[in-house]
Amino acid sequence: MAMELATEEWKGSHVLSVSDFSVESVAELFAAADKCKAAVNGAEGSDPAVLQVCKNKVLGLVFYEPSTRTNCSFAAAMQRLGGTCLQVSENSSVKKGETLQDTMRCIECYCDLTVLRHPEKGSVSRVSAYLRKPVLNAGDGDGEHPTQALLDLFTIANEQGGKIEGLTITMLGDLKYGRTTHSLAKLLAMYRVKLNFVSPQGLGMPESVKKSVAALGRAEVFECSDLQEVVAKSDVLYVTRVQKERFQDLAEYERVQGSFVVDSKALDNAMSTCTVMHPLPRVGEIAEEVDDYPNAAYFRQMENGMYVRMAIIAKVLGVL
Amino acid sequence: MAMELATEEWKGSHVLSVSDFSVESVAELFAAADKCKAAVNGAEGSDPAVLQVCKNKVLGLVFYEPSTRTNCSFAAAMQRLGGTCLQVSENSSVKKGETLQDTMRCIECYCDLTVLRHPEKGSVSRVSAYLRKPVLNAGDGDGEHPTQALLDLFTIANEQGGKIEGLTITMLGDLKYGRTTHSLAKLLAMYRVKLNFVSPQGLGMPESVKKSVAALGRAEVFECSDLQEVVAKSDVLYVTRVQKERFQDLAEYERVQGSFVVDSKALDNAMSTCTVMHPLPRVGEIAEEVDDYPNAAYFRQMENGMYVRMAIIAKVLGVL
Amino acid sequence: MAMELATEEWKGSHVLSVSDFSVESVAELFAAADKCKAAVNGAEGSDPAVLQVCKNKVLGLVFYEPSTRTNCSFAAAMQRLGGTCLQVSENSSVKKGETLQDTMRCIECYCDLTVLRHPEKGSVSRVSAYLRKPVLNAGDGDGEHPTQALLDLFTIANEQGGKIEGLTITMLGDLKYGRTTHSLAKLLAMYRVKLNFVSPQGLGMPESVKKSVAALGRAEVFECSDLQEVVAKSDVLYVTRVQKERFQDLAEYERVQGSFVVDSKALDNAMSTCTVMHPLPRVGEIAEEVDDYPNAAYFRQMENGMYVRMAIIAKVLGVL
Repeated sequence: MAMELATEEWKGSHVLSVSDFSVESVAELFAAADKCKAAVNGAEGSDPAVLQVCKNKVLGLVFYEPSTRTNCSFAAAMQRLGGTCLQVSENSSVKKGETLQDTMRCIECYCDLTVLRHPEKGSVSRVSAYLRKPVLNAGDGDGEHPTQALLDLFTIANEQGGKIEGLTITMLGDLKYGRTTHSLAKLLAMYRVKLNFVSPQGLGMPESVKKSVAALGRAEVFECSDLQEVVAKSDVLYVTRVQKERFQDLAEYERVQGSFVVDSKALDNAMSTCTVMHPLPRVGEIAEEVDDYPNAAYFRQMENGMYVRMAIIAKVLGVL
Repeated sequence: MAMELATEEWKGSHVLSVSDFSVESVAELFAAADKCKAAVNGAEGSDPAVLQVCKNKVLGLVFYEPSTRTNCSFAAAMQRLGGTCLQVSENSSVKKGETLQDTMRCIECYCDLTVLRHPEKGSVSRVSAYLRKPVLNAGDGDGEHPTQALLDLFTIANEQGGKIEGLTITMLGDLKYGRTTHSLAKLLAMYRVKLNFVSPQGLGMPESVKKSVAALGRAEVFECSDLQEVVAKSDVLYVTRVQKERFQDLAEYERVQGSFVVDSKALDNAMSTCTVMHPLPRVGEIAEEVDDYPNAAYFRQMENGMYVRMAIIAKVLGVL
Repeated sequence: MAMELATEEWKGSHVLSVSDFSVESVAELFAAADKCKAAVNGAEGSDPAVLQVCKNKVLGLVFYEPSTRTNCSFAAAMQRLGGTCLQVSENSSVKKGETLQDTMRCIECYCDLTVLRHPEKGSVSRVSAYLRKPVLNAGDGDGEHPTQALLDLFTIANEQGGKIEGLTITMLGDLKYGRTTHSLAKLLAMYRVKLNFVSPQGLGMPESVKKSVAALGRAEVFECSDLQEVVAKSDVLYVTRVQKERFQDLAEYERVQGSFVVDSKALDNAMSTCTVMHPLPRVGEIAEEVDDYPNAAYFRQMENGMYVRMAIIAKVLGVL
């Protein structure tokens, strides 16, 4: 499907997985996201017409598990394009025994496209076969969450002057269970980058992800368990949470936990241009003192989610 | 009130019951729904101004029981007309002991019209006396659900080339407890049609509904318990669910249940032009294989709900 | 901050407390609210452009405790200005342990301004220091609820021919725990008015509020426990609930409760121009028979909430 998302093939497409994307379709998407960002902020030379391209269009937001942030981001994206949303979270028909495909076919009767979040891996892809209009995967359990990976990559490009090739990106924390780092690693594997995976013992990046990255033969991978080994050469530091409940031995958790908190001291050896990212919410992994650091990009990353989702919506509707 | 809904009398009217409607007001409503449908789909010759007639208008959706589908349908209808919605489902004031009339009078302060769904029969009609602005009944317990009957009738007319007179409509399933078939039968009774009521023993159409139909002296009624007796001559087959919990004798349920599942075999003797309908959600009453049948109209029926509700909203606001 | 809200200083300001306001900034706000009211009602000479000043703007409604009415009022206000809303009530990130400031900084990424209701006194003010865009306090526990006091004052001015100076305002009911009367009293204290506080024994206006009122040296205060003592000379009667659960002695509750129900008889000695108000919901404190009384203003008061909030939103966004 990567081919489909290049050039004119966006219109009517589903967005199911990061593997639908190519370097070209990512570039096209980011160009559109830049336009959206400029229009929302009323930047000089921006095109205010962007803010009306979804006038009279309706987006159906179908969330089978709560995700306030992702939901708000998609909703804001649609509204910023001049469109409106339908929220479907608790569904009385599902309680009566309706199938997922019937629910989605009903909701799409009212909408121009839908966003689906569902706890079952593969569910969004499976149901997309029944749909006449685009569906965007907003997370299917342990499966994919492509728009998160795209907004992360967009943030990296934006914070690092537009380029991705040649960067050194360090991912820190629990890389075993963190879905966001898996998708991002797969997406970064399309570029000539250096990826450092820094995690506590036993919480390293899964073999399957490393194989996917290696298969493209472009990214170079290095693994270790101490941030200080790699922080000085990192252009980007992508922090994720280390969850207590993942540790069988609490003493082990107490031992490593401190090494995975990013504070001013942890960044002492970092370059002044090092971009600090986090998918949020954070619970102590990044100290509040880091917020004042000019390259602390996690709130901009959050905002970029809206611009990237605006671009995706506009692209699959064929209006941008 | 039937007179009121004809010609110029729509503006400011409540919509409480199918008995508010006449053949003329239905025709007027359906002409408006056709316009809405054309505009949403950007059909040639359609009027895009329809999509802005509710600009700056606000619809209050007050749901005292969950009904995702009906709620979404009304919300999408308002949004497709360029208006916006307020959702009032869980109400902190009601918990403090506020009366229904006070709640509705407060909500209408913010809105141009309201939609009310309430579990108590007669509640919407009762509260309408307190309101300055139109209220639309979206279901009051065992009472009325007029917009559902209207969208069903609109679908019949649309699927059958615009005419209702002369059609044979077969209603199948539990006709005793199925509110939708009651209202639809009453509405169809205004026309010269043939109505077949096919239900398991003990779940037949209530006497009160049959009396209402007979009172108008136009529709012809036939009752039986086997679809095959009437399927070949049916222009429309309206399927509803047979709920296990309605049977006192489980063996009886097991015995009849199969005869009330519509699959390809059940439709073997049907005309190729026979329209298959269902209010949805379905739970096995129509096999998925029927979905590919060109006259399987249940998802179009769902979509028509939005057009009919657009028309009703626009009519009572006097903007179409 | 009172100075800040006067003249051109509104844009970008937070609205945290009634003490942010001066007589001048209140007058400015009310002039804007009048414009909003005229525009919504399509009054002669009104400016329809007002209904589009928030086009493409997004308001984030973050409610940590339910308040259907306040939420709807803000949402309708934003929608009437041509903008849209994001609803954040149940927050999956908060459950993961996110701080309030992080949540609000994330939500504001998608929005142009936010409204926050939170059960903790001082929370809105505290979190405002972290925010780049305006936040409006929609109630922080026992603390402030400035927009309620402003809509009350706007209603008084509107019902009494535009003037506040010289009026006699009687507040009735539980004045000890009723947050709305505290804020309103503080706001009224900026004017030369007479304030009558009528409450059951032990539920009188707190000393702290009376001190604040006295400090400005403009309003005259009188306290009693019988409405009939002051009703004949009241220009405004502001009724609040007397909650059973506030009484330690149930017999005492039964004894006084009747004297705090406003019915036709209680108003026998009132002037024909006396404005009757209530923040709603009511649970018996005002008999339904009073609703027909021309100066029963509580539903208009509810509606005014929308106009005042439109004015506040437009002012802090700098678009009106």
